[in-house]
Amino acid sequence: MTTQRTSPSSTARRNETSRRAILTAAFELVQEVGYVKLSIEGIASRAGVGKQTIYRWWTSKGAVLFDAFLMLSEHPDGGGSALPDTGDLEADLKAVLRATVAELNDPRYDEPMRALNTEITHDPALAALYSERLDGPMRELKKQRLRNAQQAGQLAQDLDLDVAVDLLWGPLLNRWLQRSGALTPDYADNIVETALNGLRPRH
Amino acid sequence: MTTQRTSPSSTARRNETSRRAILTAAFELVQEVGYVKLSIEGIASRAGVGKQTIYRWWTSKGAVLFDAFLMLSEHPDGGGSALPDTGDLEADLKAVLRATVAELNDPRYDEPMRALNTEITHDPALAALYSERLDGPMRELKKQRLRNAQQAGQLAQDLDLDVAVDLLWGPLLNRWLQRSGALTPDYADNIVETALNGLRPRH
Repeated sequence: MTTQRTSPSSTARRNETSRRAILTAAFELVQEVGYVKLSIEGIASRAGVGKQTIYRWWTSKGAVLFDAFLMLSEHPDGGGSALPDTGDLEADLKAVLRATVAELNDPRYDEPMRALNTEITHDPALAALYSERLDGPMRELKKQRLRNAQQAGQLAQDLDLDVAVDLLWGPLLNRWLQRSGALTPDYADNIVETALNGLRPRH
Repeated sequence: MTTQRTSPSSTARRNETSRRAILTAAFELVQEVGYVKLSIEGIASRAGVGKQTIYRWWTSKGAVLFDAFLMLSEHPDGGGSALPDTGDLEADLKAVLRATVAELNDPRYDEPMRALNTEITHDPALAALYSERLDGPMRELKKQRLRNAQQAGQLAQDLDLDVAVDLLWGPLLNRWLQRSGALTPDYADNIVETALNGLRPRH
């Protein structure tokens, strides 16, 4: 009887294949059954792996789902995408916020993103991880676009860019999470215009 | 043997006493054990009533908690409180947003409010009820204060007051829910100033 030796690189490849199958399964399954009914058993069954394989790498379904989001946010070139910069700040922000609206309204993302937000709401450790790995890098891209505009004199010189990001994206995320109104492209445009111009009259 | 007859009014009083005991128990218990571990059994035990009493009036722990919030939001005079109106819009808004920050940071409210938001995120029917019974009336009070300012020429005449409310309160709620930064009085002030003046320079 011969034993077949596995080279380290083929083990790594197999692990990576399993990992991707598990994350894809988690992301698809939560869309179908909702987060409350999502289970490690269900993910394992759909991914075609044993439960123990999942528990070797993750401690909870929330942790699996978080890594599924990380995988989806990976870019082929290894970095995030910069926001569009045509020189027309208002048009660029409208395009980006409309894309956010489209993503939040996409039924494939709606339930998984609500699930992730629920976990973050109740778990400060996961919130810190989310801030560091997902929200932080995205926020930096947003601030970079605003910084360019600020240097071009299009934004107030004493503007706090974190507050600016919150004013632009906070209302969208809050309306989506609280379901307090329709999330439409017009709403995105209106937020951009009102945030840029301010509530006070401009003379 | 005499049977003691109960008058309708004393039954109503007893029901109201039980109802308040149940709602108070639910609100206190969720602070102690968190929403995931909150149960109808636990609420019944703390309120000193049978489980069936709760199931007669509510279908789920989320519904009990929702009514607990409604009870807390009741005002003795039967109506909501108008926002302060000293004529100084910026100062009034800062006072109100600072109060919101204090409430969101209050450990007595933190867990129950996160729980309510989680339910709303995943339950469109509860979201509609929340919008109609709790958020809607509060939003109307906010819009009324802004409308007064608009009529006094302090806000842009073409301003969409719903968008204005979202710009002022959305960032706070989103920062609190996503734990994306410290929720401080300074942050509240900064949001008010930036929303009123806008991101663009004022000349």
